[in-house]
Amino acid sequence: MAIPTIHRNSKPDDESAKAESKGNNREARIPHTLPTTPDPAAAKDLRMILDGQFGQIREEIRRMLDDEFFLPQVEGTLDENRDALIPLLERFRDGGYSWDSFSQANGGTGKADRSVIGLETLAHANLSAMVKGGVQWGLWGGAIDNLGTERHRRYIKPTMDLDLLGVYAMTELGHGSNVQALETTATYDPETQEFIINSPSPSAKKVYLGNAAKHGTIAAVFAQLYTPGVEESHGVHCLVVPIRDENHEPLPGVTIGDHGHKGGLLGVDNGTLMFDNVRIPRENLLNRFADVDEEGNYHSPIESQNRRFFTMLSTLIRGRIAVGGAANAATRTSLDIAVRYATRRRQFNSGGDTQEKRIIDHRSHRLRLLIPLAKSYALMLLHNEVTGRLYNQQRQINEEVLDLANPTEEQLIQSRELESWAAGLKVMATQHATKTIQECREACGGAGYMAENLLTVFKADSDVFTTFEGDNTVLIQMVAKEMLTAYGRDMADLSPIDMVRYGIDEVGDLLRRRSGLSRTVQSAIDVARKSNDNSIFDAGYQVELLEDRAQSILKSLASRMRNARKLEPTEAAKLVDEAQDHMIAAGWARMDSLALQHLVEAEAKLPADSPARPVLEQVRDLYALSTIVEHAGWYQEHNVLPSSRIRVARAAIRDLVDSLGPWAEVLVDAFDVPKAITTVPMLQDAGVDSPRYA
Amino acid sequence: MAIPTIHRNSKPDDESAKAESKGNNREARIPHTLPTTPDPAAAKDLRMILDGQFGQIREEIRRMLDDEFFLPQVEGTLDENRDALIPLLERFRDGGYSWDSFSQANGGTGKADRSVIGLETLAHANLSAMVKGGVQWGLWGGAIDNLGTERHRRYIKPTMDLDLLGVYAMTELGHGSNVQALETTATYDPETQEFIINSPSPSAKKVYLGNAAKHGTIAAVFAQLYTPGVEESHGVHCLVVPIRDENHEPLPGVTIGDHGHKGGLLGVDNGTLMFDNVRIPRENLLNRFADVDEEGNYHSPIESQNRRFFTMLSTLIRGRIAVGGAANAATRTSLDIAVRYATRRRQFNSGGDTQEKRIIDHRSHRLRLLIPLAKSYALMLLHNEVTGRLYNQQRQINEEVLDLANPTEEQLIQSRELESWAAGLKVMATQHATKTIQECREACGGAGYMAENLLTVFKADSDVFTTFEGDNTVLIQMVAKEMLTAYGRDMADLSPIDMVRYGIDEVGDLLRRRSGLSRTVQSAIDVARKSNDNSIFDAGYQVELLEDRAQSILKSLASRMRNARKLEPTEAAKLVDEAQDHMIAAGWARMDSLALQHLVEAEAKLPADSPARPVLEQVRDLYALSTIVEHAGWYQEHNVLPSSRIRVARAAIRDLVDSLGPWAEVLVDAFDVPKAITTVPMLQDAGVDSPRYA
Repeated sequence: MAIPTIHRNSKPDDESAKAESKGNNREARIPHTLPTTPDPAAAKDLRMILDGQFGQIREEIRRMLDDEFFLPQVEGTLDENRDALIPLLERFRDGGYSWDSFSQANGGTGKADRSVIGLETLAHANLSAMVKGGVQWGLWGGAIDNLGTERHRRYIKPTMDLDLLGVYAMTELGHGSNVQALETTATYDPETQEFIINSPSPSAKKVYLGNAAKHGTIAAVFAQLYTPGVEESHGVHCLVVPIRDENHEPLPGVTIGDHGHKGGLLGVDNGTLMFDNVRIPRENLLNRFADVDEEGNYHSPIESQNRRFFTMLSTLIRGRIAVGGAANAATRTSLDIAVRYATRRRQFNSGGDTQEKRIIDHRSHRLRLLIPLAKSYALMLLHNEVTGRLYNQQRQINEEVLDLANPTEEQLIQSRELESWAAGLKVMATQHATKTIQECREACGGAGYMAENLLTVFKADSDVFTTFEGDNTVLIQMVAKEMLTAYGRDMADLSPIDMVRYGIDEVGDLLRRRSGLSRTVQSAIDVARKSNDNSIFDAGYQVELLEDRAQSILKSLASRMRNARKLEPTEAAKLVDEAQDHMIAAGWARMDSLALQHLVEAEAKLPADSPARPVLEQVRDLYALSTIVEHAGWYQEHNVLPSSRIRVARAAIRDLVDSLGPWAEVLVDAFDVPKAITTVPMLQDAGVDSPRYA
Repeated sequence: MAIPTIHRNSKPDDESAKAESKGNNREARIPHTLPTTPDPAAAKDLRMILDGQFGQIREEIRRMLDDEFFLPQVEGTLDENRDALIPLLERFRDGGYSWDSFSQANGGTGKADRSVIGLETLAHANLSAMVKGGVQWGLWGGAIDNLGTERHRRYIKPTMDLDLLGVYAMTELGHGSNVQALETTATYDPETQEFIINSPSPSAKKVYLGNAAKHGTIAAVFAQLYTPGVEESHGVHCLVVPIRDENHEPLPGVTIGDHGHKGGLLGVDNGTLMFDNVRIPRENLLNRFADVDEEGNYHSPIESQNRRFFTMLSTLIRGRIAVGGAANAATRTSLDIAVRYATRRRQFNSGGDTQEKRIIDHRSHRLRLLIPLAKSYALMLLHNEVTGRLYNQQRQINEEVLDLANPTEEQLIQSRELESWAAGLKVMATQHATKTIQECREACGGAGYMAENLLTVFKADSDVFTTFEGDNTVLIQMVAKEMLTAYGRDMADLSPIDMVRYGIDEVGDLLRRRSGLSRTVQSAIDVARKSNDNSIFDAGYQVELLEDRAQSILKSLASRMRNARKLEPTEAAKLVDEAQDHMIAAGWARMDSLALQHLVEAEAKLPADSPARPVLEQVRDLYALSTIVEHAGWYQEHNVLPSSRIRVARAAIRDLVDSLGPWAEVLVDAFDVPKAITTVPMLQDAGVDSPRYA
């Protein structure tokens, strides 16, 4: 499996590094140690970089959220929790943000990016509100906006205004990830020109639906579409089905259930729907990508059933990006709280000190908080990029440059890459949230377990993020599949002569050539290659190391998959199953590299004299080296790095958290999480800044 | 840092293994693949091994728990949740289990092991009940039983009978882990022969106290003890302080607070206590290890204040063991639920199958569930061992062979080792619970997030286990400190001539000689050494690999610490802080090895013809190899294993989960978790065994 790479092991055993790491009380030194007195001005520049092109909208919403009004409930019954959310969404609507979810054609602003950033920022304070808003405007509203046509426009304004609360009814008891196998049916009856919506079996029950248990009156229902004379389903389509009458009672044939208590998100009224031959007008089919005429004939501008399905589903990516962004925001809030606690809580004195040490002065505490903090930087930057791309796509649709039903080959490639990045970002951000918020809770000890300090609330509420809007295990394999497709495409495109002409002898170079690396990142790599000293603190070399992992795994995966093509279906399926952890590893490696690349890009945008520059550099070092050390086994197994270099990287991580330790508050200041959220009770009571030692 | 060991790298690059792992669709083969049709009889033998010497008591309580009565509440107000626990504890009491917490001298059975196993087993069903029972009988009752004397005996019966609910008031707002720095004072007044209990500052507030917010009427309060004419505190002592009167109102001078909602354990009424010069009789000092006479003279059979403090605290280890055991039980319940869901839930079909695959038939699912399942086996066995040692200690106390105030040198060593194992087990079991229950939740997707399916309840309730009864970060360093002490002792004991005589040239051999390895494990190692083929499936070799990591880290740590001794206090403190992650790694490595050793021992106890034998063997392989691969970086960095061997180990893990996959239900059957708990709604609805494909 070893792949020859120009730079691999060019210093197979760096003797000086080895000597350094060998000493018991000496360590490999990082190039610079930051001043122990931080410069608060750095926070402003870091914030600018992190906010990127979305500074204004983020700033606007952060100011709105700086109000206890938005804090999550920690007490109260389920019913109280559910009703308490409505005023929050109204305040958000009054800020005008709901309109950003909708295309200009439907009277919205068409600013999909603002809508994503809006929900993301709301998640700093209240994940139930973010999810309920996401269901209402993003999923239910998004289905109408993206899958409907003029004739569904009348739903838009009341949806934006919260006068019509809607349900997005996709998942069924029997099928979550495998959406193509849904069981609910929509059968056309030409006699009455109606669709009959039916749940043919207990496992067809629609489940986990926000807005269903209490507030919703209408639903976008995904169902197998049947027309007269055609035995097979035309595939899964989406239809508008009213579920409650003017007295808020379930309509005839509609059975509504309540999921009751969940692991979190108590404010979101998740429920179930069953349909017993419910009739709706023909026009309720959201008919942008397929329609049934009065006689019952099926038409679609997209011929392949498979592509039609995935085109409809592609409108889901905004939700995925929003969930990733919200996971990031909740993580930043939690890190903000845990870091401030760590810089003020004291425990244990050392070596004759009368005053106890701040817990951040214990190295294990720096390691547990600063490594995820660095990753949160990378993820926020990557999220900006993906959201920007979503906006570009939306703009192309608004300007009618892009027709989703009929994209150009290049547009299709771009769309697939965006879908893949959105999926990967969602996986990475939500897994990071689950791990990091847990770590923050534990890092605040008993105080962290008290609900009033919010960490357990964010943990519980964000927990399902790894599952909904696409299960992480499934989504990360989508990233790998897109990599394989792109790899196959590029390999197919090139003749051996091309390969020689472009000097391409590596899958890595192929990926780079296509779309992988920006000019900034490429030039960092070029600098690293020219200097050839392979310093682990060199940005270009770090990117090479992370890309190397992605590309090696991809190449080996591609060769497995090539073998699969020759086999019988059953055998091939077995081989694919056996390659599953390989697929997952490939997807992760890709995302790790992308995140690093966006840190490198961000650095280049800082003014040369910014006090934030050396700080961001060390944040990038910390992210890069901790990722490499996390995969220390792989790097050695594949001869990419000798053991001496890994030891140096480990020592460097220790140095980096020591150097960044005093800057920890500056690093979270840059997130600018509203103080009304982060000023939790444990930061105001005598458990911190204890007067006994003041 | 490389340490020469006889067996290290004796096959520096196993060519055949390399060849095997190199192929893209071929993998290193495990020696045997289990039959794809499992033998249900294996579960019985596995259960016998897992239950060990505690089969009878576990069986007894499991039968009692097989009743919906014990299920955790998922709805209801805080108050309802709190009150609902009392009948559960009464049922437990009526089974006679509360009496196991108390020594024979105090009218109990003196069966500390039964008390630990009782609470552990209760945790299969209801962690709030386990914690509230632990506070009542283990902490409050344990303080009276272990720290009190005849004159406190009158509290015992009402405590056992739940007529007197007590609080264990140790932690303060300002001090949790650093107990020696508590601020609450107990000042003796010879005029009235009373102690005056006082909270001198806001940070002296007693916090997180179970039974305080609602049910408790009396507290065991830890305070700095002052006597007339002595300026300095005699250190932290424990005193009995009534907190509520007959009308259940706070007594004069006592201020009681309520923590309200927490991240979980809603049934436990955690609250706070502040004391404003509250007077209690002199006799309320728990005076087993120290007393104050009527005139105010302080006496103690233990001269060193430090040793006195740690002797008092040593009575805490029962609580730690119980928490570790409870974390294990909650994890087993969660794995039981997630495994049964995985074997019945279907999603995605493959290669032309009409029926969808069971999710356990996806390899990534096998990996995510079976690796933690194997570790749960190891942890249960280790827990049995530690609980057995606790019983032996308690028996020695009952038989007056051991006097805690005045132990022999050998008894002191034994006690310290028990404390260290208890601490390490608590860390390992609670971290495993936090990670695994989370994994189980995610592995059950949306259904896993519904509270009725209990996974989120177990996650939330067990979350604080990593914090209470000793923060994990602090406790794991205790393990390392005990290792260092033992190492120092052994090194000091031996002359160079001794070393030659015993053939000892290795810290590892030293540890082994002392107490590390049982005869069974030692003989497995001997067999491995003799055969010298270093198969990664060889139990003895696996133990050697895990011990090697523990010993190498310890040796390097010891050499760092030796350097620290020569430095100024401030410099030494810095060096100790810099070694902190090293300490943590040493503690973990030790526990990993201990857990494996107990798997090896368990195997030896199975009859040779037991159908469980090959299964348990592969469970042990899976635990050992996944632990090695988790530290793949370390093994290569320190030249213990070449990269080819790590690749073989990775391939073997994949083979092992494939082989064990069909046996997954047998593996959880062996836990014998009562069906009334594990038969959650998602295992009974149409989301599993979907009729569409039946």
